[in-house]
Amino acid sequence: MCDCSAKYQKYLDEAKNGKNISAKGWAVENKSAKFKPFDFQRHPLGDNDVLLQILYAGICHSDIHSARSEWRDGIYPMVPGHEICGKVIAVGKNVSKFQIGDIAGIGCLVNSCGECDACRQSLEQFCEKAVFTYDSVDVFHNNTPAYGGYSDNIVVSERFAIKVPKNADLTKVAPLLCAGITTYSPLKFSHCDDNSNGKKSVAIAGFGGLGVMAVKYALAFGAEVSVFARNENKKAEALKLGVKNFYTTNDAKQVKERFDVILSTIPTKYSVKNYLELLKFGGEMGIVGLPPTSDNVGISVSELVFTQHRKIYGSLIGGIAQTQEMLDFSVANNIYPEIEMIKPTQIDEAYDKLTSGQGKFRFVIDVANNI
Amino acid sequence: MCDCSAKYQKYLDEAKNGKNISAKGWAVENKSAKFKPFDFQRHPLGDNDVLLQILYAGICHSDIHSARSEWRDGIYPMVPGHEICGKVIAVGKNVSKFQIGDIAGIGCLVNSCGECDACRQSLEQFCEKAVFTYDSVDVFHNNTPAYGGYSDNIVVSERFAIKVPKNADLTKVAPLLCAGITTYSPLKFSHCDDNSNGKKSVAIAGFGGLGVMAVKYALAFGAEVSVFARNENKKAEALKLGVKNFYTTNDAKQVKERFDVILSTIPTKYSVKNYLELLKFGGEMGIVGLPPTSDNVGISVSELVFTQHRKIYGSLIGGIAQTQEMLDFSVANNIYPEIEMIKPTQIDEAYDKLTSGQGKFRFVIDVANNI
Repeated sequence: MCDCSAKYQKYLDEAKNGKNISAKGWAVENKSAKFKPFDFQRHPLGDNDVLLQILYAGICHSDIHSARSEWRDGIYPMVPGHEICGKVIAVGKNVSKFQIGDIAGIGCLVNSCGECDACRQSLEQFCEKAVFTYDSVDVFHNNTPAYGGYSDNIVVSERFAIKVPKNADLTKVAPLLCAGITTYSPLKFSHCDDNSNGKKSVAIAGFGGLGVMAVKYALAFGAEVSVFARNENKKAEALKLGVKNFYTTNDAKQVKERFDVILSTIPTKYSVKNYLELLKFGGEMGIVGLPPTSDNVGISVSELVFTQHRKIYGSLIGGIAQTQEMLDFSVANNIYPEIEMIKPTQIDEAYDKLTSGQGKFRFVIDVANNI
Repeated sequence: MCDCSAKYQKYLDEAKNGKNISAKGWAVENKSAKFKPFDFQRHPLGDNDVLLQILYAGICHSDIHSARSEWRDGIYPMVPGHEICGKVIAVGKNVSKFQIGDIAGIGCLVNSCGECDACRQSLEQFCEKAVFTYDSVDVFHNNTPAYGGYSDNIVVSERFAIKVPKNADLTKVAPLLCAGITTYSPLKFSHCDDNSNGKKSVAIAGFGGLGVMAVKYALAFGAEVSVFARNENKKAEALKLGVKNFYTTNDAKQVKERFDVILSTIPTKYSVKNYLELLKFGGEMGIVGLPPTSDNVGISVSELVFTQHRKIYGSLIGGIAQTQEMLDFSVANNIYPEIEMIKPTQIDEAYDKLTSGQGKFRFVIDVANNI
């Protein structure tokens, strides 16, 4: 049933015998280090777990922040990667959702308690015991470190594996597990797919990796979409997608259009209030962009009072049920990021391109063909 | 038809003859001055205007901020007062809403353009040409200064006069025009009156003049209400009203209860984030309390992202249509503030009590009996 190569036989034997499962990945030893091959162990295949041969792993900008300890001190050696597409090569005895040979995706989460308020609402990312895919301590496996997707396999509870539809473009699926759900979730939360009272007027602020995905979803939902970008470099790209108006962020104060919903993916310092004022009364602004700590301005109480009934909220990735919904929707509507495939030896180079703003597309590591 | 005393005959003659209408009020000459009697002129009675004999004028904490130029430089001489209850003693020829002898209320607004987006939605407080009841320039009357309710009459467009139901307790109506609508509006905006899916769980943060009104409305709407107050001084009062839980604001971090809606009336520095975390996912927090500029903290972008789908918004008084709705609802449900009646000569004393925290109730100036 499994077409994986013979080199995975060892992993399968370990899985079968309840042992830790060996893995080969690419890790940084500290926040200044380059990526190097790294041999490590994953926890044994539990009764509810699946073992994936990783095919593709996307590179997310958070990987860089984490690998370089830019948000907080990282856990090293660190194998980043929370945009994972792989093939199921072994299943625990209670697994019902997957069969060997199925394609599965894994996003930012690999476990949670399953019992708390957040878990019951499938907002597992807010479970106090949530285990993130890497740079996290796995409290369900003896507090071992979690290692991410820049590697040749991963073991995960089937609850946290997303079913990838058979007609999906596997080379482009991985980034959906983070960039896709991060933008899909707030747009759904703000009912951008409900155009029963006329087309929703939606603005996407920031037109990078997240912004482009947000535009694609909002358009697929039937909304009328405008974009705010740093400059006009990507205006043609935006118009080609079908956006109505393209503004530069410096215009915000002058813009006359008023929106039902604004989604900000801006990762730098900006005036939240200026955008809030572009909402219709009763409109709402979701925030998914996370500026560096030093630029982490927000909005004051009095600014809120004087922007009257315009709501603001933040959104962090999305829960597992919605991640499945997002993936099904994306594949059905042919919504994917533009990607550039790289080899594992090019990770450092990709990081440099992303930090210097030269990365035009999402980088995806072609794992299966390079081990 | 009019039972007003002979001393108003002059005002009526002026109104009839299209002249400026004389008025006697109490004003401060500058931000440090005490209140003194002040003779001034109101604009002529227009075809759509009503002339009121003022019966009662409430004292709002904003009056103090304005009179003392604590928010911005005030316009002097200043006659404060935007909580007004009066009797209609003359009407312009096109007036259809009022007859002589009717009781009318006036709140924070006396005019607006009537044509802009805000006006069309009856959110006149956000009209760019809105004329506030005092400390404002009346662009519709040759940029003359607007004088407020601490006076013996007022002329206003009938659009901005609220009909006071006949069975209202007139001594207590005035403060509803500000404290009432300020709390009623966000509670309605957050659908606290929709308990079709079980009782809404509502927390009122801050239990001063606004907070008490908010509790009364939320309870009347059928919600389950808890209170956060600075200390336990008013716990008995809150429980007597029917609140479920009484917390002190220091408890916020420890509280286990989660709310559908939180309304903050807190006028001092506090952690917005700590309250936001007390919402259920998808819940919302309205803000009406306006801390002094120096304590005007708010919430940062990253704090928003990590409080996931909990919305925050501000609210400033309310529009005219909703003010009428609020007044009708309040009288029908016997919702009034507790008040202490004072004479015009006691305004300075009342201000001092309010700023030192000794004012237990809303102060209302008994104008009609003291001129």
